[in-house]
Amino acid sequence: MEFPVLDRGFVRLVDFMGGDEAVVQAARVSTGQGSKGLERDRALIDYLMSHRHETPFEHSVFKFHIRCPIFVARQWFRHRMASYNEISGRYTELRDEFHLPATLRTQVSKDYQYAPLPAETAAPLIERIAKHYDDSYRLYQELLGAGVAREQARIVLPLAIYTEFYWTVNARSLMNFLSLRAEAHAQEEIRAYAQVILQIFREKMPWTYEAFMKHWFKPVL
Amino acid sequence: MEFPVLDRGFVRLVDFMGGDEAVVQAARVSTGQGSKGLERDRALIDYLMSHRHETPFEHSVFKFHIRCPIFVARQWFRHRMASYNEISGRYTELRDEFHLPATLRTQVSKDYQYAPLPAETAAPLIERIAKHYDDSYRLYQELLGAGVAREQARIVLPLAIYTEFYWTVNARSLMNFLSLRAEAHAQEEIRAYAQVILQIFREKMPWTYEAFMKHWFKPVL
Amino acid sequence: MEFPVLDRGFVRLVDFMGGDEAVVQAARVSTGQGSKGLERDRALIDYLMSHRHETPFEHSVFKFHIRCPIFVARQWFRHRMASYNEISGRYTELRDEFHLPATLRTQVSKDYQYAPLPAETAAPLIERIAKHYDDSYRLYQELLGAGVAREQARIVLPLAIYTEFYWTVNARSLMNFLSLRAEAHAQEEIRAYAQVILQIFREKMPWTYEAFMKHWFKPVL
Amino acid sequence: MEFPVLDRGFVRLVDFMGGDEAVVQAARVSTGQGSKGLERDRALIDYLMSHRHETPFEHSVFKFHIRCPIFVARQWFRHRMASYNEISGRYTELRDEFHLPATLRTQVSKDYQYAPLPAETAAPLIERIAKHYDDSYRLYQELLGAGVAREQARIVLPLAIYTEFYWTVNARSLMNFLSLRAEAHAQEEIRAYAQVILQIFREKMPWTYEAFMKHWFKPVL
Repeated sequence: MEFPVLDRGFVRLVDFMGGDEAVVQAARVSTGQGSKGLERDRALIDYLMSHRHETPFEHSVFKFHIRCPIFVARQWFRHRMASYNEISGRYTELRDEFHLPATLRTQVSKDYQYAPLPAETAAPLIERIAKHYDDSYRLYQELLGAGVAREQARIVLPLAIYTEFYWTVNARSLMNFLSLRAEAHAQEEIRAYAQVILQIFREKMPWTYEAFMKHWFKPVL
Repeated sequence: MEFPVLDRGFVRLVDFMGGDEAVVQAARVSTGQGSKGLERDRALIDYLMSHRHETPFEHSVFKFHIRCPIFVARQWFRHRMASYNEISGRYTELRDEFHLPATLRTQVSKDYQYAPLPAETAAPLIERIAKHYDDSYRLYQELLGAGVAREQARIVLPLAIYTEFYWTVNARSLMNFLSLRAEAHAQEEIRAYAQVILQIFREKMPWTYEAFMKHWFKPVL
Repeated sequence: MEFPVLDRGFVRLVDFMGGDEAVVQAARVSTGQGSKGLERDRALIDYLMSHRHETPFEHSVFKFHIRCPIFVARQWFRHRMASYNEISGRYTELRDEFHLPATLRTQVSKDYQYAPLPAETAAPLIERIAKHYDDSYRLYQELLGAGVAREQARIVLPLAIYTEFYWTVNARSLMNFLSLRAEAHAQEEIRAYAQVILQIFREKMPWTYEAFMKHWFKPVL
Repeated sequence: MEFPVLDRGFVRLVDFMGGDEAVVQAARVSTGQGSKGLERDRALIDYLMSHRHETPFEHSVFKFHIRCPIFVARQWFRHRMASYNEISGRYTELRDEFHLPATLRTQVSKDYQYAPLPAETAAPLIERIAKHYDDSYRLYQELLGAGVAREQARIVLPLAIYTEFYWTVNARSLMNFLSLRAEAHAQEEIRAYAQVILQIFREKMPWTYEAFMKHWFKPVL
């Protein structure tokens, strides 16, 4: 299932391996045992999370298909404990798809609090941005038309252009991503993606999600 | 399914995600395309392997349950791009299970070539080893009986004692493991495990296996 | 010392730990020995490289300060076995510094061979690109002037804008980077950086460099 | 300088790169600035640690030479974000050096609290252990004498035998190691090593140490 994010992006869970029971299985190997019934298994996951015993969460793995603007992807790819394969602007002509903000925001405190600009201020600026995207893409096309290599022509395109990638990540690394990108200090755009992923995580690993929200995730630092 | 290895060990594939088609999917995202039919997909995997474009192989993930002697596990855990959860000699009493060699080998060249010792030489030595395991385990039991903590008592146990762990590893990292541990210079005991895993890999990812054997794996350096 | 790269970029070696002798030291620990004289140490490094025993190279570490366009940084940050800290467009106003190509190139074969466009074709296009950078930066300034948050305003800026980061990487991971980014199929711009780094690597680890060029690096695949 | 640990082990800092000022340098690149004076730099390190902004700590790197029993090394090598080269029992004959406990301990609570056994109980058991080491090493020698390959003969040796390795690790990964291995739940023997390393860390990165002790390290969970 594909979840739309921002104006033209999406998150899609392509594959998944493991789950809460895989966490229990990995953790109980340390004592040579397996499941001990629902309640004790759930309590074990809570215990592991609260004591930051994180390795048993590595045996559950998510594979996502993501479509997001490059300025979001730049933050995403900083997470190194994961696998990425991305569409290449060297091998393909990029499409005319840019993130156009619906509203503009202004920073109202040093601690990354924001408020929307009044619509009457924002509207003409957003129009300017849209026109800038058109101009940028037209120049890109013109360069391609004159024979310039795709890899060189693309350098004129704005950071708002959309990209796509596959992202495979285990639950431990995913929780680290969510703890940093779904919380209040993350940039709004990547937070929109992280919030959707948080719900997918919840559906696939409900006990782990519950323990994560209780012991690790802090909505505000 | 559980594959026996050595005298008391095993390899068991617990879970698997991905496959040859996942390699193709990840690689084709770079050009914004998907499968192009069996023959071209197979050729793509061959191309990726021969050019060492290894990231598309990271989206396929194996989870194994392994039982092997500690001297084998020590070599195994050197592979850092993987997830491990192992039975703990701090939390549980270790069982009386040691690897007893069926034959003894001698080194016949500097380059790690070996030949079996004559049976009449080996037999009494193997008996000595078996008795040593008994003595070791008896001392371990005696220490436990006197109240010594498990974590301290175990230090008298030989490296031949069996351990167990879950091992989750993506296909790229697995191929690196196989290239080093299934080849002729690897120690015979870990090679026995790697050979079994090689067959599981072949069954799950036949085209990737084929390309791996052709372009990466070298039975002898 | 700072080495200029492209029109406004640079590579600067900030710190370094290790060297050829550290490779020898790490490798010889496996036999409980140290240096055995220059010639045998040099031969050992050659042996390690030719047999792909790569771990002894991990104990030498380079720290670089890099300034490059974002489309180059995007390729750079795909290398996960390294540490990065980058200037942030959320926390600072980005400067009016873009990579303006001196020549434009066209792709002349499927296998990433390129040839320069004639100067008379390229010159007016390069002028267009320069003007596009001006327009882009003016819009960025206008958005900032209207109160738009830096993190949102920057999305209109082209991929050619310069960024800066610290990059700490061990010699093994560096060689992997060089093998992929200094060779003929890499995009010309990142190759310019990799070529400079290759020379710094040569100066700091001459025997390792020599063995790398002989056994690992392939200028053309 | 070499710090003795346990009966025959040691920790030796071989090389070091970075320091508190390197943390500041890496963190300030995000705003395009450098040092701002001692007090503000120190406060910055405190801020980074308390907000778990851990990447700036990755640019400082320690290289240690360690000598410890194999049962300690087994716990050590679980830390994957580091580089290891270890003496090999395949390539060399291992020496007659085992960890002989000075006291024996018993577990007095489920939560890994221990108390020493009375000396009169412990003394004869320790003698038994010493004799077991002698017997084990004699069997190892006998197997070698009969021509058995080193890699096979060693499997009879107890987990208490000493090994040696080089360990290169950045400050972020080192702090993770210390947070798990220097605290009260870690096994006493590896904790002895971690305590020594904690002091070396303190000497090399005093502000980082201070912030680590305040915000990350928990002596008891």
